[in-house]
Amino acid sequence: MIHSAEQFQVRKVTQKEIVDTGDMLAVEEPLEIRIVSGPQGSRQVKTVSITMRTPGNDDELAAGFLFTEGIITKSEEIQSIGSKENNVISIELDENAAPSLKTLDRHFYTTSSCGVCGKTSLDAVKMKSIYTPGESKLVVPSSFLNTLQQKLQGHQKVFDITGGLHASALFDGNGELIMVREDVGRHNALDKVIGASLLSNKLPLDNHVLLLSGRISFELVQKAFMAGIPIVAAIGAPSTLAVTMAEECGMTLVGFLRDNRFTVYAGKQRIEQNS
Amino acid sequence: MIHSAEQFQVRKVTQKEIVDTGDMLAVEEPLEIRIVSGPQGSRQVKTVSITMRTPGNDDELAAGFLFTEGIITKSEEIQSIGSKENNVISIELDENAAPSLKTLDRHFYTTSSCGVCGKTSLDAVKMKSIYTPGESKLVVPSSFLNTLQQKLQGHQKVFDITGGLHASALFDGNGELIMVREDVGRHNALDKVIGASLLSNKLPLDNHVLLLSGRISFELVQKAFMAGIPIVAAIGAPSTLAVTMAEECGMTLVGFLRDNRFTVYAGKQRIEQNS
Repeated sequence: MIHSAEQFQVRKVTQKEIVDTGDMLAVEEPLEIRIVSGPQGSRQVKTVSITMRTPGNDDELAAGFLFTEGIITKSEEIQSIGSKENNVISIELDENAAPSLKTLDRHFYTTSSCGVCGKTSLDAVKMKSIYTPGESKLVVPSSFLNTLQQKLQGHQKVFDITGGLHASALFDGNGELIMVREDVGRHNALDKVIGASLLSNKLPLDNHVLLLSGRISFELVQKAFMAGIPIVAAIGAPSTLAVTMAEECGMTLVGFLRDNRFTVYAGKQRIEQNS
Repeated sequence: MIHSAEQFQVRKVTQKEIVDTGDMLAVEEPLEIRIVSGPQGSRQVKTVSITMRTPGNDDELAAGFLFTEGIITKSEEIQSIGSKENNVISIELDENAAPSLKTLDRHFYTTSSCGVCGKTSLDAVKMKSIYTPGESKLVVPSSFLNTLQQKLQGHQKVFDITGGLHASALFDGNGELIMVREDVGRHNALDKVIGASLLSNKLPLDNHVLLLSGRISFELVQKAFMAGIPIVAAIGAPSTLAVTMAEECGMTLVGFLRDNRFTVYAGKQRIEQNS
């Protein structure tokens, strides 16, 4: 059993009563992701991320993180994924792999002083993808989108018992639910979906629709772009930069998908109105 | 007028109609935070963060980030905050200030290989605070908590028009709303509240209650701990590590605060049941 939820003693207070009881909470723990790379005889270990995540599918999370951050570009670069110990996971890269670490700098703690100045916001932060979701010919009817949330219900296993997790769900072009991943961090839930697809050689996801349980930030559109996903839909609202990114990449972005209605922010040619 | 929301052309689709219209979105843009430190004659510039944020209160965000990340410990270390240009903000530190950058490593891209292994999760990621919110004698009646969400309504100006932002709100011990800050990133909204308090010399906030619009991650409890806040309440659910952190620091943690009910996860001695 994966340790994704844990029982705590809590006090529930209403205007009528106070009840001391047990309650299930979503687990949050740090995961250190390391890569081991270089030629035999002089292999090097490097920590590339410490992320706060919900345990479960850690292999997928680590592989997805390496891919969506542009550190690796194909599954063949992964030689093996070591067993996880003490919240540390090590990915052994092929000795010919040339991991790119400079894109990590855009997040945090850069030593250069060029940063985000003198460029437009999007140019400063976006990364290049090896895929072109903008060229996908996928078209779905609006009734397709209206069924997604219902299909997700019953599959958010940890959310259902804790109320404390984000979900990323992948559907194929026929509306079939392919997989659901959950995490306290929405970026981790998406990295798990993309990592699982990478490890099973399913990339690019150019005939798929991604459903996100919350709001849509720039970072989530960026990750979907890296995996070649043409249609991203979410229950919540997108940010400006999420929409600008989707527009520039030719992706379709749908928000406020609930109660048989939704708003299309970019790429409306992929959504066909039902007659 | 602060550029926190922006109009986009969207398509709203219901089962009855399609309407192409304008819609307000929450702005998301990168902010590069730099510090300038060292003795006169050999001042050095260093980028400490690039964060995706909603413009508005950037001074507070930058100051709050430096404080909650443990880079500075008091407002006197800030000499001046430069004007913002091209999404870059520079904070000039006093020449005697000794900014601590090593705590940043816990987030990302460390070069050491000790990481989070061999320690408990909490010990690996938590930081020391100069304040002791656990010693606060603040006690509030449960009716006090039940009014907070209503008091917040009408003050989430950007959320109300975009539906796309998190809020952090600070209340005093009498239930008076002191300030509300909004951001696409929940950690940024809280850094803005704490930064504003730091810049007006109001720290520690040991007689205050913090209200968060969403879920409670470890990181948010950590930031509240740095500012000495004894009671943290949220509309959403906490994670396990958020609760463990609050317990260890003697803080009170309340979740699912809605519809005149709530759940107390830690520090229930600060909540008095109304008779």
